[in-house]
Amino acid sequence: MSAILYRLERVIAERRKGDPEASYVARLRGKGRAKIAQKLGEEAVETVIAAVSESREDVIAESADLIFHHLMLLADCGVRFEEVETELTRREGLSGLDEKSTRPD
Amino acid sequence: MSAILYRLERVIAERRKGDPEASYVARLRGKGRAKIAQKLGEEAVETVIAAVSESREDVIAESADLIFHHLMLLADCGVRFEEVETELTRREGLSGLDEKSTRPD
Amino acid sequence: MSAILYRLERVIAERRKGDPEASYVARLRGKGRAKIAQKLGEEAVETVIAAVSESREDVIAESADLIFHHLMLLADCGVRFEEVETELTRREGLSGLDEKSTRPD
Amino acid sequence: MSAILYRLERVIAERRKGDPEASYVARLRGKGRAKIAQKLGEEAVETVIAAVSESREDVIAESADLIFHHLMLLADCGVRFEEVETELTRREGLSGLDEKSTRPD
Repeated sequence: MSAILYRLERVIAERRKGDPEASYVARLRGKGRAKIAQKLGEEAVETVIAAVSESREDVIAESADLIFHHLMLLADCGVRFEEVETELTRREGLSGLDEKSTRPD
Repeated sequence: MSAILYRLERVIAERRKGDPEASYVARLRGKGRAKIAQKLGEEAVETVIAAVSESREDVIAESADLIFHHLMLLADCGVRFEEVETELTRREGLSGLDEKSTRPD
Repeated sequence: MSAILYRLERVIAERRKGDPEASYVARLRGKGRAKIAQKLGEEAVETVIAAVSESREDVIAESADLIFHHLMLLADCGVRFEEVETELTRREGLSGLDEKSTRPD
Repeated sequence: MSAILYRLERVIAERRKGDPEASYVARLRGKGRAKIAQKLGEEAVETVIAAVSESREDVIAESADLIFHHLMLLADCGVRFEEVETELTRREGLSGLDEKSTRPD
């Protein structure tokens, strides 16, 4: 299962309090919410480009970057990943995940 | 555990082959890779705005959208979510998740 | 000369005060700064995709959308396009437009 | 008038052929279309954040960056800025700039 995402979330929570000299997480956190959000935006753009360029390896690498910075942004917003999962589960229940569909499946 | 992401991945794989009239997933898939990538980019921008605007509920909702469309894009690229997790785990092993740090923790 | 950008700026300034039922500008303005910023982000993503997909006609069309929404965002921020031009001119003077270069040309 | 944009366009066209060691434009050009597009995406995200954060000075600075990299991307795509202006003028003529409006003003 996706134990890695939970592990990452825990590690990020710890590193945020760490030494900015030694830790990328602490350093980026120190730059503030807007900078973390900016990184998420940048990694999303890189994922988009990798996907459109049909570069499978890049899609994997950029997706990892995107998820990592997403977890960092959630941490900064005081949102647990579990809350996002709960929202995804709620939508799944509501509409068979097709909430945006114009009519039910 | 993050069973929901795996469940979503499976549902997306099925829905992609479904009826575009009835399914948002099938419809978006039918528009092609660039449109799915575009949606990922849009949801990332919305997550950025929610985070900077300090709207906790919006961060959760937009994060759910972002993850959902990320899974859709991975599916379109023939990448399993597990491969992204493997990449995240590999980095964790390499550098204690601080691969970008200038020196190891 | 780029008279069109100034004309657009003036038209946007007028339309912002117009009837949201009749005008896209008034309608988007009514949705607030975050929505206008979101549109800028979306049009940038579409321009990125068009460029990477080597679709010349799309690059032109998406660039027009990007500039139009950029002017809308500037208006909402109370920034005149002329101020951005002044900044571009200042940088040109400073560094021969290569401000980010590690050493001067 | 917006002479600065035309001047920038000309300078970019020259610098693209220049020495990557000495010129940011030549260096970025050397990294290829995807990297230039990525920069456009990043600058758009920064403009979005500046606007939502209500930082007027940052909106001006990031807008200058956005336009500069937009011109670089157009150059790489072989699109003259004038072609984008023509498209903007065409839309202005068509619909009073409100092409997306559901009904004419």
